Amino acid sequence: MNFNYDVLVIGGGHAGCEAAAASANMGANTCLITMDMNKIGQMSCNPAIGGIAKGQIVREIDALGGQMGIVTDKTAIQFRMLNMGKGPAVWSPRAQCDRGKFIWEWRTILDHTDNLDIWQDQADELLVANGEAIGVRTIWGAKFYAKSIIITAGTFLNGLMHVGRKMVEGGRCAEPAVHHFTESITRWGITSARMKTGTPVRIDKRSVHFEDMEEQPGDIDFHQFSYMGNHRVLKQLPCWTCYTNSKVHEILKSGLDDSPLYNGQIQSTGPRYCPSIETKLVTFPDKEQHPLFLEPEGEDTNEMYLNGFSSSMPMDIQLDALHEIPALRDAKIYRPGYAIEYDYFDPTQLKHSLESKIIKGLFFAGQVNGTTGYEEAGGQGTVAGINAALHCVGDKTFEMKRDESYIGVLIDDLTTKGVDEPYRMFTSRAEYRILLRQDDADARLTEKAYELGIAKRDRYDWWMEKKDAIERIIDFCANYPIKKDEINPKLEALGTTPLRAGCKLIDLVARPHLNLQNLSEIIPDLKAAMEAPGNRKEEIAEAAEIKMKYKGYIERERLIADKMHRLENIRIKGRFNYSEILEISTEGRQKLERIDPHTLAQASRIPGVSPSDINVLLVLLGR
Amino acid sequence: MNFNYDVLVIGGGHAGCEAAAASANMGANTCLITMDMNKIGQMSCNPAIGGIAKGQIVREIDALGGQMGIVTDKTAIQFRMLNMGKGPAVWSPRAQCDRGKFIWEWRTILDHTDNLDIWQDQADELLVANGEAIGVRTIWGAKFYAKSIIITAGTFLNGLMHVGRKMVEGGRCAEPAVHHFTESITRWGITSARMKTGTPVRIDKRSVHFEDMEEQPGDIDFHQFSYMGNHRVLKQLPCWTCYTNSKVHEILKSGLDDSPLYNGQIQSTGPRYCPSIETKLVTFPDKEQHPLFLEPEGEDTNEMYLNGFSSSMPMDIQLDALHEIPALRDAKIYRPGYAIEYDYFDPTQLKHSLESKIIKGLFFAGQVNGTTGYEEAGGQGTVAGINAALHCVGDKTFEMKRDESYIGVLIDDLTTKGVDEPYRMFTSRAEYRILLRQDDADARLTEKAYELGIAKRDRYDWWMEKKDAIERIIDFCANYPIKKDEINPKLEALGTTPLRAGCKLIDLVARPHLNLQNLSEIIPDLKAAMEAPGNRKEEIAEAAEIKMKYKGYIERERLIADKMHRLENIRIKGRFNYSEILEISTEGRQKLERIDPHTLAQASRIPGVSPSDINVLLVLLGR
Repeated sequence: MNFNYDVLVIGGGHAGCEAAAASANMGANTCLITMDMNKIGQMSCNPAIGGIAKGQIVREIDALGGQMGIVTDKTAIQFRMLNMGKGPAVWSPRAQCDRGKFIWEWRTILDHTDNLDIWQDQADELLVANGEAIGVRTIWGAKFYAKSIIITAGTFLNGLMHVGRKMVEGGRCAEPAVHHFTESITRWGITSARMKTGTPVRIDKRSVHFEDMEEQPGDIDFHQFSYMGNHRVLKQLPCWTCYTNSKVHEILKSGLDDSPLYNGQIQSTGPRYCPSIETKLVTFPDKEQHPLFLEPEGEDTNEMYLNGFSSSMPMDIQLDALHEIPALRDAKIYRPGYAIEYDYFDPTQLKHSLESKIIKGLFFAGQVNGTTGYEEAGGQGTVAGINAALHCVGDKTFEMKRDESYIGVLIDDLTTKGVDEPYRMFTSRAEYRILLRQDDADARLTEKAYELGIAKRDRYDWWMEKKDAIERIIDFCANYPIKKDEINPKLEALGTTPLRAGCKLIDLVARPHLNLQNLSEIIPDLKAAMEAPGNRKEEIAEAAEIKMKYKGYIERERLIADKMHRLENIRIKGRFNYSEILEISTEGRQKLERIDPHTLAQASRIPGVSPSDINVLLVLLGR
Repeated sequence: MNFNYDVLVIGGGHAGCEAAAASANMGANTCLITMDMNKIGQMSCNPAIGGIAKGQIVREIDALGGQMGIVTDKTAIQFRMLNMGKGPAVWSPRAQCDRGKFIWEWRTILDHTDNLDIWQDQADELLVANGEAIGVRTIWGAKFYAKSIIITAGTFLNGLMHVGRKMVEGGRCAEPAVHHFTESITRWGITSARMKTGTPVRIDKRSVHFEDMEEQPGDIDFHQFSYMGNHRVLKQLPCWTCYTNSKVHEILKSGLDDSPLYNGQIQSTGPRYCPSIETKLVTFPDKEQHPLFLEPEGEDTNEMYLNGFSSSMPMDIQLDALHEIPALRDAKIYRPGYAIEYDYFDPTQLKHSLESKIIKGLFFAGQVNGTTGYEEAGGQGTVAGINAALHCVGDKTFEMKRDESYIGVLIDDLTTKGVDEPYRMFTSRAEYRILLRQDDADARLTEKAYELGIAKRDRYDWWMEKKDAIERIIDFCANYPIKKDEINPKLEALGTTPLRAGCKLIDLVARPHLNLQNLSEIIPDLKAAMEAPGNRKEEIAEAAEIKMKYKGYIERERLIADKMHRLENIRIKGRFNYSEILEISTEGRQKLERIDPHTLAQASRIPGVSPSDINVLLVLLGR
């Protein structure tokens, strides 16, 4: 049985769903091949979307016309904007979601996406001809041919799960592993290696002593993930905090001999910033306690997720340790935590479009590229989906620069620096954090996405309307004169120093204690200027206010980024035979040859390429 | 890691869910072990509950305090009362359900059931000591100990799926098979064998030409599955009918050599009354067409189920054949139909309580007993759950006679006659169909269930209220005098012959053209007598009317059933050494020895035991 498509997506997780939706929305005839249509967009680990830097990625996916933000808003049972005490560069939305509803929301979106078919089956072999990916054969013997193929297999490739000394093959708890498929890729010269990740116990709410935990409620405000405005509809629930203690640590340490992480059973590397509880004990032997967060898994279910207690220790050690925490002294669990090892493919073998440098028309996104996190996966999926669709019709690619999006930073890091442990996004990975804010992803990306065709007219129209509204407010503030005698009593009431001379309203907005909200209460004209269509007034005001308050910072970073663009614009791909440039260090030569950077800027970011190596290239370029 | 419970349930399908809920509601400390908490109550095949005789079973499960009826009402997207053109003995409720919501409704119910824990893992070994089941070891090495263990493993035991000549191990599409567990049961002397079942392709709604099909809408009336009254809340959707044709048949026949059913690949027997399309062609070579029913899988999804097209033919044959049906000429599918072979255990090795005769404390329910159907599974699960709970506290068992419930018929057939093909319930399997109606399952079972503790007070109270209301209406009709001169013009208007003399209202109710509804419109006192609490008036009226209209039939069957009870009451278990009674035929001796019947009536139903064998036993008993 043969089927023909423009784009095939192998895997229905967070990368695969975005990739499939993106490609189909770009107009490519797309087929998503997934082992289990009941598990589309399954949150394999934490029932949460977003978080620091990750939340920004979701906003970017949304601004690009992707779906993760929409699904998150519809299924959120707790929303918080993290880092609100700091500057807006690092404000990061985060939501707990109903795990079951998250799946069905994704399923419904894909079901209703034009140009998109779903096939329930398992990829068994990548079909390649003349260095080009041409299709996939499934375990049931169906052959799917396509112009572009995107691999988004998550942790399923040769997946091996560990609990203590017990090992079980599987791609995820209760799901089979995929054998053979990796080998059908690596035989063409693409290298793979192993990584490891893990997940904690799931706990029965009914067995928890909540009176011994701290409640952590969500925000009740206007923030959300999608710029398209599907506000939260589900019952909002709190999370809960508790701590490990010395007894917990003692029990865990007593089991280290049977820990697959410490007895040699697992050799591959896990996510540094999401370590297992046993790794935390070994890494920080002096710490007397570690915080744990008990998170609801849904509106109605008793299942709860114990964030911070990821483990692959033997089951009895996990449970005994848990029972030493006062709030969890009677905890019943649904299953133990486990570790899983899986295949990934060295991402330096990819172009910035996420297409393989080795096999044409083959794209990789998500955990198979050595990343961790739903958001990182979704971001890559979106880019891979766009590029897979573009690949069907010509040579154009879609790439984002490091000052354009966290997704751009992510992909540049992956393809330039490679990974030796699961890669997670942080705000610190971005040079231009003030340019990559959660509030302005639409400003950065939506017009481009509309040109590409992935973002639809309604999104574009709304952004245009919002953009106008933001500019109207800024214009109003820039031109509205403030008379000191009229305003000073009100300013004093707001706890800010009085004016010595008149100014423009925008000068007041820049002050720390003032914002559009409290200013609009004392300046009725401002209130009128802030009126906005629908119920998006607060979102628009936030965007306008940040642009005014942080104008200086934004402009300065813009300047630095533009400077760097000059290096970015010096294209060097194909211009050098690095092995012959003996002025460059041996390591530099080898790395430059392997990565084959597009631009001088990318070359400068390759680990092992020194500033003097870059100078050599500049000289050779005659600059 | 060791855990202790009263009752363990192995498997979270329709049998396992009911068993777990029943046992927990009886007060037993219960643990449900399931491979995948996202697939609890998964409808592996048809997205429908009920149907002829099966609908009655669901009503019985509900009357017993089980959950299937409640879940069905909450998730129904189409409801029909089948056989309404025939007598009420065979009226059978049937509903299409939203497959995804069905799972989450079950999950929510189990999540909120007291005394019930869930453990996500896979049973690997049955633990037995001194002829008694004492626990289960899982693949992760956890040991669960309990007084009663219920096996409800469905098609997972050594499951092997077939599509054409391709074979893949699995318990269900996308789910791993369970190895080793069967062997850990059969090593104790319990025999297992293989059965086969199958499922059709799933079709993408967007590719169907509905204009070439007949629409089949559901009923909009008061009927529902549960006596507790959660009426349908989801959007109601139609089903669609089309037919195969000679071209379809030709293509299918061309693939018979590659059909696992006809090339020797599958040796085990499938469900006779749910045959694959290829089996229909081979069995009825003269039939020029077979009806197919396209059924929605949910409120929002595009996935549809093609009832009647179950197949394990090669994928391309299935799809090519499908495309010859006008309405399906452009059909896109999500996956092909497939067959699955699995282990079952000879049910004659069970007592009527569904406890093994060989291993004490071990119960079996559902497909592992050689049945087919969610309802048959649920019915057995309920009985196994009740008896597993009873087993923890004493020697009492709960058994239903053949005149008490279809579930009683089912279990008596299984344990007495055994199975050589998947057993499905039909009304024709019951001797006393007019006693086993969908309207009176509560009358038959709810008081018993309340005594057992599985049905709760609210169910009992409501039934008592309903029972009183029914009796009030019957009393009213029996005593209400009808004067011929007053009524005759109205009777003539209703198309029924006028009275020659006065009578009681009940005599009019018995007439074919009359019913409580139209009589209440001409007799205001009746309308007043029919007022009932809540919105259950129609349900009560239906029950009262059937009791009046079919009084004669009901009483006659009751009489026959009571007569049979005399034989049922002659307990013979343990009273004979059959091998020494040479007056009994050799076959009769062997069968009696194997089944070891409880009563003379059960002995008479054993295939191979003749009426003269029964007479020998009667003589030996001195009767």
